[in-house]
Amino acid sequence: MAASRTRIRIDVAYDGTEFTGWAKQPGLRTCQGLLESALETVVREPAPVTVAGRTDAGVHALGQVAHFDAPEGIADIDRLPHRLNSLMRASDIAVLRASVAPEGFDARFSATSRRYRYRLQLDTRNPLAKDAAHWRRELALHAMQDTAELLTGLHDFAAFCKPREGATTIRELREFSWRFIQTDGPGRILEAHVLADAFCHSMVRSLVGACVAVGEGRLGLAAAESLLQERRRSSAIPLMPANGLTLMEVGYPDDADLAAQAERTKARRTPDDVEPRSRYHAEQPSQSTGDQQ
Amino acid sequence: MAASRTRIRIDVAYDGTEFTGWAKQPGLRTCQGLLESALETVVREPAPVTVAGRTDAGVHALGQVAHFDAPEGIADIDRLPHRLNSLMRASDIAVLRASVAPEGFDARFSATSRRYRYRLQLDTRNPLAKDAAHWRRELALHAMQDTAELLTGLHDFAAFCKPREGATTIRELREFSWRFIQTDGPGRILEAHVLADAFCHSMVRSLVGACVAVGEGRLGLAAAESLLQERRRSSAIPLMPANGLTLMEVGYPDDADLAAQAERTKARRTPDDVEPRSRYHAEQPSQSTGDQQ
Repeated sequence: MAASRTRIRIDVAYDGTEFTGWAKQPGLRTCQGLLESALETVVREPAPVTVAGRTDAGVHALGQVAHFDAPEGIADIDRLPHRLNSLMRASDIAVLRASVAPEGFDARFSATSRRYRYRLQLDTRNPLAKDAAHWRRELALHAMQDTAELLTGLHDFAAFCKPREGATTIRELREFSWRFIQTDGPGRILEAHVLADAFCHSMVRSLVGACVAVGEGRLGLAAAESLLQERRRSSAIPLMPANGLTLMEVGYPDDADLAAQAERTKARRTPDDVEPRSRYHAEQPSQSTGDQQ
Repeated sequence: MAASRTRIRIDVAYDGTEFTGWAKQPGLRTCQGLLESALETVVREPAPVTVAGRTDAGVHALGQVAHFDAPEGIADIDRLPHRLNSLMRASDIAVLRASVAPEGFDARFSATSRRYRYRLQLDTRNPLAKDAAHWRRELALHAMQDTAELLTGLHDFAAFCKPREGATTIRELREFSWRFIQTDGPGRILEAHVLADAFCHSMVRSLVGACVAVGEGRLGLAAAESLLQERRRSSAIPLMPANGLTLMEVGYPDDADLAAQAERTKARRTPDDVEPRSRYHAEQPSQSTGDQQ
């Protein structure tokens, strides 16, 4: 970042239903497109935004984080959320906060964790639960929980990833659990909590898909475990609908470690870097360049 | 109902955002309009529907109840929800259940209670919380709870009702309470739980408005209490936005009492019927002809 500019962190929430995902695409309604064009109006120059999680079409976010570099002397940062929200004129996206980023902060490369939730609406369709995928078939919760537990840890998740040239598929899945949540409406809602350093493309929806396949009895637990040995995307894993997925939170290290973390992430590990699992278990965090769900 | 017909109870949920309310209106998108036209396709004749709560534009429902009288011999009632949902082709309304109604059942006149919730999204706007009204100003929860408590009971709620010629405004507000609910997203959500035998037009949004006025310090508790003595709609009570309101449940008596309850409700009490409060407290339920929020 040039010394003459001020990096601003922006926290964003959106209902992904009517967006063609986060990433800007010509002629399509995207979160990045809306946000950048509002920012450009405010700062009177193009304002490219970097984001922590490039969510796919239909995926929601309640804790998305982005940054952009504002011209020095940008005033009234406290009022920026209100100005951007007024300019975007959309009820399905909201800038929650804007703040001067700490030294070394990069929304994408400084991130050390991403937390997602996935919601399944069972029994019936609740039109107010737009962030839950409707699932008609019976599911055994205990089998889904067993699947989640065996997938947790540092693994090569190639079977769960849309392939991307030269990108590693090793990730540290730190937390993955299922529970029924309290709801006052019709039908039960089953929610997965998923936390990792980062996720390869489509990984969360595939992790959930594996649990659903086991929960429906279509896939055995041993078969699910053996997916971790595969080195390419597996057709045994259903890709779950986008509308059940919500990015909840992006984690960053303490301010003092932001720049170092960004450097570590940029020196990204490629598939050639894959090392024996024992090595990774020795407190060495896996590295990745981003996150796309 | 003619002896040759079968009365069907239908449970419905909808996101009210894109509906001009429940009640059919020429040229407008309404819940009743969509449902009746799907029913007409199924039974091959006009199928007028009676509903428990005629929700206003923007109001949601998770537990709406309606009925219609089907031609005798209607088959596959279990599959009716699926057929109606396919015909309506709308993600914001869902028939949850269809069942042959017990003898004497009338969705509107047999109902003995309606339960609503009202949600206020505080701090920030959450684009996924479409069933919560965003409220920017500070609110004192204890003052709102105090207001709710003093409004609870059998009262003439004229100050809280849009006037309707010849209709009583006496209602028994059985439960009214406020709490913060657990949310995983940004901002806090404050939820009112409101239960009465029935509500006069706009009553729930006015009850909530009175609590908000007290919670903001714009109205004193004594002034709020004195509203119960007024005999016409009060301008001191703000009408809260429709999008925070959701009809959660309609209560009915045991099957044996359905017809008697419908008769009691139809012999509706008019303003001339207003009697001393002591009389009502003697276990005598107030009567009303319906519910519109």
